[in-house]
Amino acid sequence: MPSRLLDIRTGVLNKNDQLASALRLRFRAAGLLTLNLVSSPGTGKTALLERTLRALRESGHPAGALVGDLQTDNDAKRLARSGAPVRQIITHGNCHLEADMVAAHLDGFDLPALEFFFIENVGNLVCPSSYDLGEDLRIVLLSVTEGEDKPLKYPPMFNSSDAAIITKIDLAEVCEFDRETARANILAMRPNMRIFEVSAKTGAGMTEWLDYLLQQRKAR
Amino acid sequence: MPSRLLDIRTGVLNKNDQLASALRLRFRAAGLLTLNLVSSPGTGKTALLERTLRALRESGHPAGALVGDLQTDNDAKRLARSGAPVRQIITHGNCHLEADMVAAHLDGFDLPALEFFFIENVGNLVCPSSYDLGEDLRIVLLSVTEGEDKPLKYPPMFNSSDAAIITKIDLAEVCEFDRETARANILAMRPNMRIFEVSAKTGAGMTEWLDYLLQQRKAR
Repeated sequence: MPSRLLDIRTGVLNKNDQLASALRLRFRAAGLLTLNLVSSPGTGKTALLERTLRALRESGHPAGALVGDLQTDNDAKRLARSGAPVRQIITHGNCHLEADMVAAHLDGFDLPALEFFFIENVGNLVCPSSYDLGEDLRIVLLSVTEGEDKPLKYPPMFNSSDAAIITKIDLAEVCEFDRETARANILAMRPNMRIFEVSAKTGAGMTEWLDYLLQQRKAR
Repeated sequence: MPSRLLDIRTGVLNKNDQLASALRLRFRAAGLLTLNLVSSPGTGKTALLERTLRALRESGHPAGALVGDLQTDNDAKRLARSGAPVRQIITHGNCHLEADMVAAHLDGFDLPALEFFFIENVGNLVCPSSYDLGEDLRIVLLSVTEGEDKPLKYPPMFNSSDAAIITKIDLAEVCEFDRETARANILAMRPNMRIFEVSAKTGAGMTEWLDYLLQQRKAR
């Protein structure tokens, strides 16, 4: 990257970090646990989030969500079926969310009435790793269909995340997914990272994931 | 994006385009058909390419490949098993290949001895769409595991590609993949685009894909 571009990019990142810090204070003041969900396109962020929003609501823990895509509001419509308050961010081509996009889409949310706030990032295993959105936890998703080597090939995303979810675990066998290799590769990027194995389709692993969310919120 | 950043980014893109044009002339002078393979991480670019390189070699049509990743030379090692000349580009965090990276990795290839040259881009369904690498054809891959809506959510990649390959077609049923919806969504982004349905595992659809490659080279 030319150094002039690098200088300006650093400036953009610093500005993003300042805004993200302000957002973090705002989310915490409202009593929220905020999570930034990142993954490749098609890993199943929306399917997991839909099931998570519904389960939290049914157990008396209200949650809201922002969801980012280059185009379409398909995901917001899909997530709204859970009954949770949801808004779509359309990035118009931008490959990741930034803190100012999050800030610009908070109108209409009654944040203090919520316990959890999810931000579903644009499907991209590279660029979102550089942008803090004010979240408490960054959660990286990896599906069994993508192959076990992704953590090694995309180190910044895995080493900047706080927990990992292996999704579509119901397809593990048919995809000949090697669970131990995948887990070892994740841990090579970030030792001791908590790893969940979940199927949003069958519900496998949802209890552990939901328990983690409740514990994390309580611990703050 | 701040306008100063936008100006400089435009400059970087223009420089890339000039270099890509020079590369295109060089590839054509060597008699090559050059293809830029783009997709999400985990769509199966490497698996398809490995099978393609082997099939071309066995039928007397030598091909070479460059493969891009943020880290690791796993893919180059894997592709080298096909017997084809292959080199890895490690981008050290960059989210896409650029023409200068391709140019810097051509040493050691006997280009006039080859008929086809494949460039496997970094797994990213957004950023590589902006960077011409001097290819004749850009081929976008979409796996049945990713969902039918990806063309609508990532328009620049689909409308800048010349053909699409739906991969892992052997998993279509277990993933409840809706083929007609996926095809309609691809064609909504780029009408009349040629669409292949392939399984690198079973070999389904490989004949059509290989015929297309031979035809495209002949037509130039």
